Amino acid sequence: MVEPGGLVTREPKVAPLHNNASSVLPLGRHVLIELMGCRFDAINEVGLVQDAMRDAALKAGATIRELSFHRFSPHGISGVVVIEESHLAIHTWPELNYAAVDLFTCGKSVDPWKAVEVLVSRFESTHQKSREFVRGPSDVVSGTISSSAEH
Amino acid sequence: MVEPGGLVTREPKVAPLHNNASSVLPLGRHVLIELMGCRFDAINEVGLVQDAMRDAALKAGATIRELSFHRFSPHGISGVVVIEESHLAIHTWPELNYAAVDLFTCGKSVDPWKAVEVLVSRFESTHQKSREFVRGPSDVVSGTISSSAEH
Repeated sequence: MVEPGGLVTREPKVAPLHNNASSVLPLGRHVLIELMGCRFDAINEVGLVQDAMRDAALKAGATIRELSFHRFSPHGISGVVVIEESHLAIHTWPELNYAAVDLFTCGKSVDPWKAVEVLVSRFESTHQKSREFVRGPSDVVSGTISSSAEH
Repeated sequence: MVEPGGLVTREPKVAPLHNNASSVLPLGRHVLIELMGCRFDAINEVGLVQDAMRDAALKAGATIRELSFHRFSPHGISGVVVIEESHLAIHTWPELNYAAVDLFTCGKSVDPWKAVEVLVSRFESTHQKSREFVRGPSDVVSGTISSSAEH
């Protein structure tokens, strides 16, 4: 929700990912994903990478605040999409057909895995490896929600 | 290194973090750190948070490309420092005296833990919990370099 003065209400502040007995709830989820076997051009053109990341954020249900993308020489893109619900970041090594992505989301309305689907498709990644972590204060942060084998 | 046209050479592309028998080397390191017991104002003023993150990046030995910081209502800051060696990101919940930080660095010249020291000091964090992961293609990414107990 955008308020006068451009401030945005971040909702909800405390978004439990699952029911548990802990008195301290996780605030967010953080997915680290390695995208391998990507098509060189798809992760070496700043326009393509930025479009893919923007569309991934929207598909996940996020509200975009800012895009910041940079191209490196001779290869590679770094970029961040700042969303109201935290951020999506990417760093690509086209020469290795590899992109490192992380998606930090808060709230129950955003699904980072929908963003992953978009990126896998756009970059034509043939195999991936993912890890998802709980973020938040105290003991809840030690949790790993999921960790995939390479597939 | 900034080249004509504003392109930056990202160095080195392949930066082994440690010697091992793997034929595939990690490209980067990704530190997730929960900063707890932070002083409310220190993580609720966008200027203070941005200055702390900028100084943290510089202390780590990184080269800054872009800063992107946003304030939320009623509380909270989200911000990213895009560096030549990847990124530093922060999301704060002042009402919980908590900040979620992640630091993705490439190359041997950048030490993310020096950035952590700056942030702990500036935000007056009383206790922290950290996890560090290897990023890169193939089997190396399953590695956890370190994982701290809360201290």
